Amino acid sequence: MRVALIQQSYHGSSELTIKKTLELIKDAKQNKAELVVLQELHQDRYFCINEDVKNFKLANTIESDIEFWSNIAKSFEVVLVTTLFEKRAVGLYHNTSYIFEKDGSLVGKYRKMHIPDDPGFYEKFYFTPGDLGFKPIQTSVGKLGVLICWDQWFPEAARLMALGGADMLIYPTAIGWFDSDDMKKKQRELESWVAVQRGHAIANALPVITVNRVGYEKDNFSQIDGIRFWGNSFVFDGGGEELLRVDEKSEEAFIVDIDMQKSQALREIWPFLRDRRVDNYHDLSKIYID
Amino acid sequence: MRVALIQQSYHGSSELTIKKTLELIKDAKQNKAELVVLQELHQDRYFCINEDVKNFKLANTIESDIEFWSNIAKSFEVVLVTTLFEKRAVGLYHNTSYIFEKDGSLVGKYRKMHIPDDPGFYEKFYFTPGDLGFKPIQTSVGKLGVLICWDQWFPEAARLMALGGADMLIYPTAIGWFDSDDMKKKQRELESWVAVQRGHAIANALPVITVNRVGYEKDNFSQIDGIRFWGNSFVFDGGGEELLRVDEKSEEAFIVDIDMQKSQALREIWPFLRDRRVDNYHDLSKIYID
Repeated sequence: MRVALIQQSYHGSSELTIKKTLELIKDAKQNKAELVVLQELHQDRYFCINEDVKNFKLANTIESDIEFWSNIAKSFEVVLVTTLFEKRAVGLYHNTSYIFEKDGSLVGKYRKMHIPDDPGFYEKFYFTPGDLGFKPIQTSVGKLGVLICWDQWFPEAARLMALGGADMLIYPTAIGWFDSDDMKKKQRELESWVAVQRGHAIANALPVITVNRVGYEKDNFSQIDGIRFWGNSFVFDGGGEELLRVDEKSEEAFIVDIDMQKSQALREIWPFLRDRRVDNYHDLSKIYID
Repeated sequence: MRVALIQQSYHGSSELTIKKTLELIKDAKQNKAELVVLQELHQDRYFCINEDVKNFKLANTIESDIEFWSNIAKSFEVVLVTTLFEKRAVGLYHNTSYIFEKDGSLVGKYRKMHIPDDPGFYEKFYFTPGDLGFKPIQTSVGKLGVLICWDQWFPEAARLMALGGADMLIYPTAIGWFDSDDMKKKQRELESWVAVQRGHAIANALPVITVNRVGYEKDNFSQIDGIRFWGNSFVFDGGGEELLRVDEKSEEAFIVDIDMQKSQALREIWPFLRDRRVDNYHDLSKIYID
């Protein structure tokens, strides 16, 4: 199964950004990708860099956005993973991945369950935590365990997708550095981000596909010095072997072939799912054990 | 906090093996270690390499074994993590970690919860899965989240220890290669073993201390060609930074200093525990979601 990871930057406007995305999807198709994964909130700049009520208007077009990406999936005949700003009702918004089949049909959606909130990533202001749970979505290229960005730090999310029968884990992402941080801190953050997801791959014997944005985006409020999104999109197979790891700058449709039979072989020799102590996991539903 | 990881081989008899262990604990103490971690089932060869009822007699000495290691902890004035073959009743055995305080008192025990069973590692024949749950043990050097070997593949175990207030995760281990496997497979297995535990460190912002045995041990039944225990004992801090990673051969008391304040700093900037979706984790108590 051939997948394309579309790593790109914000091009100054939503229109120009989408134009670039379409060029890269075209590349992906020419390289025979069947599955195309876009980064988190790929239509626009990462607006959560500050808390501004004006940004809610970006979600007003959700219906036409869905129709637009449905048409793109159909015209390129690819399974397409998008992440859009969902307006669900007046004053109720989600960070939502919509998944389209090759014929353009919307086969499922995932609303980001774990919502971050730290300086420059004010997502709790914008997004209500998802209410659809952790359910993989069946497509013609496999059952997709789509999660979004902050979800990637939570082993529970990956495991629930695996238990739901996911064939792979997919993380559209927007994460980056502050230029004011020193190189050692930046490297540690980047490496821990890669490593925790590699852990999910191994613990669940599932491929992990993570697509992050690149480029510098400034904070219009000047509270922080902006975010330099660190790219480094990657794919690990279910044994934790690196199939792709790219740089922190390139805008490209990165192509990876995934062996869909490997999870079977991995789980036969190291059958973790056989041995889970479900009789003793109930406290995972507690905030803390005290 | 200074910890010593005692990585060693089986020396042909329990007596000679323990003699070597004591030499290494002496080294650890001379290097001012406060916490000493021994590998899994360190008193003997890894007898689970085949299924032999004769091996149950190795557990007959459990009471005197506990007394022996208690005296060692006391005489060296270290917190000591041992793993012994526990005979609990006639025909009822566990793979159990006993933790001793610097004064020799037994402060807690952990019975291995996840029991493996694959060729050369026939643990389901010997050990009843633990019934003490995942409870960290308070000591003078911190609250120890002691888990054993196969547990290291299960993110649930690490998380439950973190939720129970563990200051660190500790994995006494016995894992190795078959010489008949090719180098690529060996490397993949080793790297995935390290990587999944590094993932637990990061996901929980806790140091991970893993001590594995070294040396070749043959299968007396000649069903397999024996196990070459791969060593590679390691320590990661809670940010996933490697503090120690050793080779596959050395017998040594490896010394590492752990910054006990780092978890606090890590959890302040990336507060994963704040954002867990405990309202949606109940299915983790299912074997599979179907």
